[in-house]
Amino acid sequence: MANDKLKIRSVGIDTYHENVAYMHRDCELYRAEGFQALSKIEIRNADDKPVLAVLNVVDDSSIVTPNELGVSIQTFQQLSLPEGCEVNVCHAEPPDSMGAVRRKINGERLNQHDFLNIAKDIEANRYSKTEIAAFLVASGQTSLDRDEILYLTRAMIETGEQLDWKESQVVDKHCIGGIPGNRTSMLVVPIVAAHGMLIPKTSSRAITSPSGTADTMEMLSNVNLTPERLLDVIQQERGCVAWGGTAELAPVDDKLITVERPLAIDSRGQMVASILSKKLAAGSTHLLIDIPVGPTAKVRHMREALTLRKLFEFVGDQLNIHLEVIITDGRQPIGQGIGPALEARDVMLVLENSVKAPADLRQKSLQLAGRIIEFDPDVRGGQGYAIARDILDSGRALAKMHAIIKAQGAQEEGNLSGGNLFFDITAEKSGVVSNIDNLQMAHIARMAGAPLDKHAGVDLYKKLGDKVKKGEALYRVYAEFKPDFQFAKNLCQTNNGYDISDNYETPKSFVDII
Amino acid sequence: MANDKLKIRSVGIDTYHENVAYMHRDCELYRAEGFQALSKIEIRNADDKPVLAVLNVVDDSSIVTPNELGVSIQTFQQLSLPEGCEVNVCHAEPPDSMGAVRRKINGERLNQHDFLNIAKDIEANRYSKTEIAAFLVASGQTSLDRDEILYLTRAMIETGEQLDWKESQVVDKHCIGGIPGNRTSMLVVPIVAAHGMLIPKTSSRAITSPSGTADTMEMLSNVNLTPERLLDVIQQERGCVAWGGTAELAPVDDKLITVERPLAIDSRGQMVASILSKKLAAGSTHLLIDIPVGPTAKVRHMREALTLRKLFEFVGDQLNIHLEVIITDGRQPIGQGIGPALEARDVMLVLENSVKAPADLRQKSLQLAGRIIEFDPDVRGGQGYAIARDILDSGRALAKMHAIIKAQGAQEEGNLSGGNLFFDITAEKSGVVSNIDNLQMAHIARMAGAPLDKHAGVDLYKKLGDKVKKGEALYRVYAEFKPDFQFAKNLCQTNNGYDISDNYETPKSFVDII
Repeated sequence: MANDKLKIRSVGIDTYHENVAYMHRDCELYRAEGFQALSKIEIRNADDKPVLAVLNVVDDSSIVTPNELGVSIQTFQQLSLPEGCEVNVCHAEPPDSMGAVRRKINGERLNQHDFLNIAKDIEANRYSKTEIAAFLVASGQTSLDRDEILYLTRAMIETGEQLDWKESQVVDKHCIGGIPGNRTSMLVVPIVAAHGMLIPKTSSRAITSPSGTADTMEMLSNVNLTPERLLDVIQQERGCVAWGGTAELAPVDDKLITVERPLAIDSRGQMVASILSKKLAAGSTHLLIDIPVGPTAKVRHMREALTLRKLFEFVGDQLNIHLEVIITDGRQPIGQGIGPALEARDVMLVLENSVKAPADLRQKSLQLAGRIIEFDPDVRGGQGYAIARDILDSGRALAKMHAIIKAQGAQEEGNLSGGNLFFDITAEKSGVVSNIDNLQMAHIARMAGAPLDKHAGVDLYKKLGDKVKKGEALYRVYAEFKPDFQFAKNLCQTNNGYDISDNYETPKSFVDII
Repeated sequence: MANDKLKIRSVGIDTYHENVAYMHRDCELYRAEGFQALSKIEIRNADDKPVLAVLNVVDDSSIVTPNELGVSIQTFQQLSLPEGCEVNVCHAEPPDSMGAVRRKINGERLNQHDFLNIAKDIEANRYSKTEIAAFLVASGQTSLDRDEILYLTRAMIETGEQLDWKESQVVDKHCIGGIPGNRTSMLVVPIVAAHGMLIPKTSSRAITSPSGTADTMEMLSNVNLTPERLLDVIQQERGCVAWGGTAELAPVDDKLITVERPLAIDSRGQMVASILSKKLAAGSTHLLIDIPVGPTAKVRHMREALTLRKLFEFVGDQLNIHLEVIITDGRQPIGQGIGPALEARDVMLVLENSVKAPADLRQKSLQLAGRIIEFDPDVRGGQGYAIARDILDSGRALAKMHAIIKAQGAQEEGNLSGGNLFFDITAEKSGVVSNIDNLQMAHIARMAGAPLDKHAGVDLYKKLGDKVKKGEALYRVYAEFKPDFQFAKNLCQTNNGYDISDNYETPKSFVDII
């Protein structure tokens, strides 16, 4: 078949994390509907790695003509071919490694070989979103034993790039997430880097949360650094706070997360593999993991936190990373602001030793930084906290933060206040704040437009144990965009996320964060 | 907010079983990217039931302008609004019943209430494809107990319409599938209807197989009947062979199947619930289930077939349907042809009592029809087969088939031969056919273009136990369309589906089909 080719056309449709191709119903070469029913096609030009895509059939020749193959923006980028270039199309067979996924569904244990094949197929975009969902659910909470988690972690590391910093100590920290406002990384990095340790912190952007560390840092500096620029910054300043998406570190993890998060299925095994694969690929030698525990945190009971700690320790030890786990108070958001601008404001207040700085954010960051500083063989056990506090109080952390911001490229706009649209949520009765729902507060900030609208979010006026009078403001919601403002307002009316009790003993932290 | 509406525009893109909406990146009212990250939107006009869709962001104003909301063909049909009509858009919250799915993932047992909520949300299109995949995998092979299968079956019946024929006996048959060419329904219906029993057989179209009964029947008559026409046909002829998609019988089942089939996950519980919900919704009182057993059939061992039989019996008894299970020989395709035209030819040869009629198709159809005829209280036990044979041999079945075809609307074209493009696959050595792979033969027919190309498919010249000489044709592959012809040829070269052995005892059927 010599003339069995279609011309590639980039269709201006952004299909997010899924590849989509568009074929005219009267395509001159292929039976569009036949392809569509089998759900995936493989697009090839002469030599290259095939690109897989879901097929949509088009009846409108202004979108795609019968001798063209339209592709969505993402697909066009992956193909890296010029428009008009000729390609072949064929049926995409289901990936071979789906056999292993089906065995997992049937309760079998998979081996290292199986996990590596699955990771390779996912990396090569051979899995559809439903196939990824099948793998995630099959390897859900109760179905991966600790050896399988190790295999999965290894497979995710091996299917991406790995950095080597050529230093004996490369430290990092990671929080398992779920606590709004918890921007400790932006304080830990300058403190630890000011101490002289190498802390190349790459962060993620929000997927379903109101802000990721990368989104918040972006208020202050550029975070989209090329791998080369990143290296310069780190060599110069010993630390950075940048978006990790430019390096191909554990790319399978990214693909899994984009399906897992909207499904809101929390698999402990996937979490451990996700965190450790990213950190090991990034070349970390020493890692501190923060597990917040609370009724609306990801981990709700101390016994769960302990199980999870052991899992991290087991896999970390096998993969030869020095790993410590700290269990922290996750009963409420950390700091005052939720959303990129408001969180960045909190971070700067702590660095500036302002009296307005949120005490819990300062305290927690010092604890974490102190533990990391104790990875330094020259630091006496138990002295880390004092060293961290000294670095922060003396202004050295602030100076380091300014240096990192400058090295990454400072943002011109310095406005860290909330958006122009706002409303307050007030107490319906007098009493004591007895519960703040992390999930609901995150949801409200998200609906208000965070993280896309940088100044959208929530500013908390009252925290757990605070006394409130009826009508007093509990928090303020900021938005920039009117429909989002309304979405957030509607959501607060359904559930404002706060409980007020009449007689409530200010509870002590039920986990000891020191 | 008065002016928060976008104008609906139908975009000529067929997104198959998924709703997709298209919003311009510079949409005047909403932040397109913010919606996209959360993966689903809800489209509402004043009063109607909301329609959910995945959001794609568009950069091309010729597809959709900033004050329009584009929708795919399917979505436009579901909205049933005129173009230009104004709609609201909001974030679609994940369906409440996903909480139950997550509990299932964690190994909990669900109750009737949970299954009903899941079915209602799926029926209302609140589940994305990945959420449906999560439910299917979570309730996979080992994870639904028999009570849960009963709950699921009931939930699927209750979320659709139910027919009532107002007769004491409404019979039906169903094969669990997986055997190419197995078109017994088109013989059982005329035989049983000729005996005077009511057999309103609604059939499915192929999803991943080379032909469904509806596709094959469509060679002979119209199968897209309105519910009213269908009723007329059945009242007049006591039977029909029509496509079931026009009635809203267990619509949840259809939505599950479109995700389940491409994933090729075989859940026994889902299968039982799927079959029984459809049959009960269709008003059947007596049902014969055919379970073929063979090394490449859906059920590979007799012990599995027995387990499955008990499951069918348990759920059937609870739901008050008279149900019998027959276990049949599923080691190879039934009949000679695979694909709509070739299968229809086989059926007509049997009805016409031709010497060329495939003996296995005739034999199996008589067995099944005989068992159904014995549901008739006036028939003495053991006499069904003889009655069925008499109806077939006397030409009364053929006459009934002609009457049904005429009532449904006969097709003008009478050509039941293979397509114009064909090639033969020949034996690589002399010997005896010792295995025919059902899955591979179905795959070859599918690649050749079946069921979309009606005359595409495979014609088997040799069956299990037949002697062949080297170079003799084993089967012929027909296609209508050149690229499909090539796809099938490539596939045959990889694996032609036949095993030839030197010394092979013609095996007796290892299950007794009488």
